Amino acid sequence: MPYKNVRRLPPLLASRRMTREQYDRVLPPLRDALLAAQKRLADEKPFALAVIVTGVPTAGRSEIVNQFLEWLDPKHVRVHALDVLRTASHARPVMWRYWNVLPPRGQISFFFMGWYADCVYPALRHRKQAQRHHARALERIRQLERMLPQDRVHLMKLHLTVGRELQQERIHKLRADKLTRWRVTREERWLARHYDDVMKVAQRCMLDTQQPQAQWHRIDGSDPQSRSFAAGQLLLEELERGFGPSTPAQEPEHRASRHPTKMRSFPTAPPGGPPADDEYDLELETLRGRFALLVRRNRFRKHGAVLAFEGMDAAGKGGCIRRLTSALDARQYTVVPVSAPSQEELSYPYLWRFWRHVPKRGEIAVFDRTWYGRVLVERVRGFTPEHDWRRAYDEINEFEHQLTEHGLIVCKFWLSVSKREQLERFHARDDDALKRYKRDPEDWKNRRLFDAYGQAAREMIGRTSTDLAPWTVVEADNKKFARLKVLRSVCEAIEAAMK
Amino acid sequence: MPYKNVRRLPPLLASRRMTREQYDRVLPPLRDALLAAQKRLADEKPFALAVIVTGVPTAGRSEIVNQFLEWLDPKHVRVHALDVLRTASHARPVMWRYWNVLPPRGQISFFFMGWYADCVYPALRHRKQAQRHHARALERIRQLERMLPQDRVHLMKLHLTVGRELQQERIHKLRADKLTRWRVTREERWLARHYDDVMKVAQRCMLDTQQPQAQWHRIDGSDPQSRSFAAGQLLLEELERGFGPSTPAQEPEHRASRHPTKMRSFPTAPPGGPPADDEYDLELETLRGRFALLVRRNRFRKHGAVLAFEGMDAAGKGGCIRRLTSALDARQYTVVPVSAPSQEELSYPYLWRFWRHVPKRGEIAVFDRTWYGRVLVERVRGFTPEHDWRRAYDEINEFEHQLTEHGLIVCKFWLSVSKREQLERFHARDDDALKRYKRDPEDWKNRRLFDAYGQAAREMIGRTSTDLAPWTVVEADNKKFARLKVLRSVCEAIEAAMK
Repeated sequence: MPYKNVRRLPPLLASRRMTREQYDRVLPPLRDALLAAQKRLADEKPFALAVIVTGVPTAGRSEIVNQFLEWLDPKHVRVHALDVLRTASHARPVMWRYWNVLPPRGQISFFFMGWYADCVYPALRHRKQAQRHHARALERIRQLERMLPQDRVHLMKLHLTVGRELQQERIHKLRADKLTRWRVTREERWLARHYDDVMKVAQRCMLDTQQPQAQWHRIDGSDPQSRSFAAGQLLLEELERGFGPSTPAQEPEHRASRHPTKMRSFPTAPPGGPPADDEYDLELETLRGRFALLVRRNRFRKHGAVLAFEGMDAAGKGGCIRRLTSALDARQYTVVPVSAPSQEELSYPYLWRFWRHVPKRGEIAVFDRTWYGRVLVERVRGFTPEHDWRRAYDEINEFEHQLTEHGLIVCKFWLSVSKREQLERFHARDDDALKRYKRDPEDWKNRRLFDAYGQAAREMIGRTSTDLAPWTVVEADNKKFARLKVLRSVCEAIEAAMK
Repeated sequence: MPYKNVRRLPPLLASRRMTREQYDRVLPPLRDALLAAQKRLADEKPFALAVIVTGVPTAGRSEIVNQFLEWLDPKHVRVHALDVLRTASHARPVMWRYWNVLPPRGQISFFFMGWYADCVYPALRHRKQAQRHHARALERIRQLERMLPQDRVHLMKLHLTVGRELQQERIHKLRADKLTRWRVTREERWLARHYDDVMKVAQRCMLDTQQPQAQWHRIDGSDPQSRSFAAGQLLLEELERGFGPSTPAQEPEHRASRHPTKMRSFPTAPPGGPPADDEYDLELETLRGRFALLVRRNRFRKHGAVLAFEGMDAAGKGGCIRRLTSALDARQYTVVPVSAPSQEELSYPYLWRFWRHVPKRGEIAVFDRTWYGRVLVERVRGFTPEHDWRRAYDEINEFEHQLTEHGLIVCKFWLSVSKREQLERFHARDDDALKRYKRDPEDWKNRRLFDAYGQAAREMIGRTSTDLAPWTVVEADNKKFARLKVLRSVCEAIEAAMK
């Protein structure tokens, strides 16, 4: 929901002309300060900065970005200009490509149109058809822009504007000279012809995405010196604000969900007892065949699947995963083992390392431990402050929402093992030389927190089990039962989605 | 060229049956040793291991990989099964996707069919048509497999084979049962029907790619226990060999090129004097327009370009690059600034970090410093042993060959500045507050080695200027002249390629 108290357009900057002499006088200290700030950012890496540059044609979007590139040390700067997705059947969820190029801390990235191109252009061109998608597109953007600053990717959003007459004049001038004619694309001429519509859509879009930590700045593009200087000053302010004391964190959006759900411990023993050996063998092979055929069907190419496994140590995740993957062609799936984040991963927003592994349509990604680490191990062991893991529930729900709305089938399994069974498996590992590598001093530390993990898991499941991405609790004290149940659930979920 | 002295098939391993009891007795110590070796690999990271598993259907390729996954700690293992490229118009050079998933040091990666699928299947299916591509495909593989072990990605190549009768029997058995019928794909049945052809192509391919550091191992897949054990033993041997003393480095293939080329210093002053200001402005705009129109042509979408800039410090690379990119739509190009490799980049083969940035068809990548760092700064400053930078000439030529044969237009510029002009620019930087960030103590260190750099550059240009990827030496003592010459060369190269 947009924040009502900021639902007005920001003031228009740089509307006063600046002479060349004035500019030459004020620029040097600004450039100096910018370079110093950038150097500090690159050295200390307290945050990353994503600068989104939008606006109307001829208002000076590329000139501003080129200006920045000349002023800053190019080593720590990237420029991204992602084309509008023209097909609805792209291989991955829409936001995937933006996640893919988010700046790590210490870096400044400039995004031409940022993630707004996918949202603004369809709204302009196919108004009727796009309406229902448009609201959701804005929602995705708002959620992303709430999350990024909290994950220390600061945002600066510039909108460059210019009056209709001046725009026409500039286009005519560029097109009149055959040397500069190529600078005006067909798309830009279309946009110029629809000036009023463009302004309306752009302004509404700005209003809808105006949030405390992701404010828009409007810059008048009429005067080249003035607009450059204004953009430079904004950048400097943004960098300096970043070095200052951090702004108070925003509250998670859905406050209601903060009340802990009441739920008893999960069952761990298979209802109806463990399966007999011969029954198990037959059913395993049957389910495996069913699964294999399902993912080979043509319709599955429009979907793809994300299979997520969580559970206490020794709950049997690996065994379940191998029973699934042995039914698959190795070209169709990846297993993503998730452990403590690497130094590189820590320099990006939390969900970055999971977005990277989102499968293409028709493919399957199996996660051995998942993005839920945030509200399990990181919460229980105190690796992450409460505010950060609390907001993760909403962020995860949104992440999975984006997967499912893209067509991906999301199944999440909590392998529920009793404290006693876990102990037995630990001891079996000690005896079995082959499983020694699985012994980890961390396991015993985690075991002492068994109940805290259980409680965290119950809250997690209460808050993140949605219709489209439900949790399945698997009674895992018996491995064979667990494997069959997992395979069966996956088959049923795929059948339901492809019906 | 294949090495003649090893042009015979390796012996067939695991052809003796092993009973379940024997297997259960010999396996535990093997698994134990494998885990210990893997742990050591992950801790000390002395090398990476790429295991390529090829073979005929039903010989047990996936079973072997699954076996390894069960035996090893999955955290440091990846499995890749890249589908055959079915279209000739893929966006990037064929080897790109393999570079993209090479293991970093400390990791073991399994490749189903490795980089052989693209080479074997076309040779089987469209024999006539593929012949001329086939020789080149083998050459690319041989070159890669010579380079990787020297860059500390060790290779282990397995070929699983099984007799025609046993293969038929296994296929019939799997297809007779509706539970296992799905396990035999149509492609596998095709391959089984053409058993003799498959064996012939596979064996020739093995012979053609048998090299000292990338030997093939043939495993008889008739007996499940025996083949598993043999594969496990090979893996253990390979790991242990990796920890041992490193094998003597191979000589670069083209010995002839080791004789230094004789060449005088490069010119630095613009022939015909510097351009006048008004001439410069007009010609810059003309060239920019010509360049802009060229890359907007439909034909350019079948190409794409790689523009590489090298030169002494302060030679004016950044200025030339900005004059080029200001003619482009930001969506069409990326500038890749290259500096000292990061910790992550150092854990991969040298060329990995450049392959990552190879552009798609129709796109342009501009490298501000390049892969030639190996034979310039790394050579002159002694960061890299002589043997490694010496072999880089051939490796780079092959890299660029792969780019150009894919259709990419490769232009390489050496901006040649005189020692005196460089000094003047350094001093100008000291005076100009805005360029302070460009001052780097390294610059002065490099300046003391000016002549050594010049010599390295001359040898580099002599050895890596090829018809398809030529060097252009740009007299850079005058910035304006240099910018015009660069723009003009790029336009001419694109026009020549699109003729």
